[in-house]
Amino acid sequence: MNIHRKPRIAIDMDEVLADTVDKLIEVYKERHQHEVLLSDMHGREFGQTLPANLASSVKQYINERGFFRNLKVMPGSQDVVKALTEHYDVYIASAAMEFKYSLEDKQAWLEEHFPFISWTNIIFCGHKILDVDIMIDDRIKNFVTFNGRKLLYSSPHNFLIEGFERVNNWPDVAAKLLST
Amino acid sequence: MNIHRKPRIAIDMDEVLADTVDKLIEVYKERHQHEVLLSDMHGREFGQTLPANLASSVKQYINERGFFRNLKVMPGSQDVVKALTEHYDVYIASAAMEFKYSLEDKQAWLEEHFPFISWTNIIFCGHKILDVDIMIDDRIKNFVTFNGRKLLYSSPHNFLIEGFERVNNWPDVAAKLLST
Repeated sequence: MNIHRKPRIAIDMDEVLADTVDKLIEVYKERHQHEVLLSDMHGREFGQTLPANLASSVKQYINERGFFRNLKVMPGSQDVVKALTEHYDVYIASAAMEFKYSLEDKQAWLEEHFPFISWTNIIFCGHKILDVDIMIDDRIKNFVTFNGRKLLYSSPHNFLIEGFERVNNWPDVAAKLLST
Repeated sequence: MNIHRKPRIAIDMDEVLADTVDKLIEVYKERHQHEVLLSDMHGREFGQTLPANLASSVKQYINERGFFRNLKVMPGSQDVVKALTEHYDVYIASAAMEFKYSLEDKQAWLEEHFPFISWTNIIFCGHKILDVDIMIDDRIKNFVTFNGRKLLYSSPHNFLIEGFERVNNWPDVAAKLLST
């Protein structure tokens, strides 16, 4: 019965729609006068760039209410996601369940920046066991049991990973999914 | 690569694990001295049993912070769900996104009553576009694009619906999914 439906896309939030790394950089500048450069992160997680005495605080800051509320929107994402909704059934899927105070922040953030995405198409989960055709994500762990088309959204932590179809930015997504 | 994984089940929350109808009955008794009997609901939604002047308040009450925090657990569900986790990869999937203040309540409720379900296996969504093998739900709308085994969990509003494999209570679920 699914034959004539639009193809479904699941789009991740952190580091795909929302610039979580930028926020972490700001937090460590403000609270610890410690500057992390994106080039330090090449192939590493943000926490791995920190000196030992700061590394454990990352989870604590991410767990603070409000952390996810004021993230910057990834350039071009709003226009491209809006255009995608014309041709695809677009879902926003975030592994938000890990951080219990993130849920309301993420909901409000999406309502502000992606108001054209209905609540019916928002998914907060852990494992992304989704029945979709295309997944856009910066974490290959979310691709492990997924058999559809996987687009690895480039983020410093995944720069060294090979063997996946990549998108480096939102114009790249548009070129792959909206051209023709 | 999925060939050897355990079968996945998605279990709904409201009216399947949590007795939402019981809470609504209590709310209308307390706030409006209006008593709804389960027999009034036969084949109808709770709101359809109310007099016209009360019907519009249902959504308002459900939207209150705390509404979903103290729901009663459906009899037998904890033991059966725990037993299911031994044979299946069990996910709890709730269309919670409709009610923005329900997310934290539902998360806390699951942590209290189903502490053996990891955050990785909790899904709050709108449309249930899940890649699972079995779905247990009281709403047939959640079965529409699902091609796996559908177990309709009986609830007053769905009593008149025919043509689905039904479970009337948690012992029924155990009989169908745990016996061999």
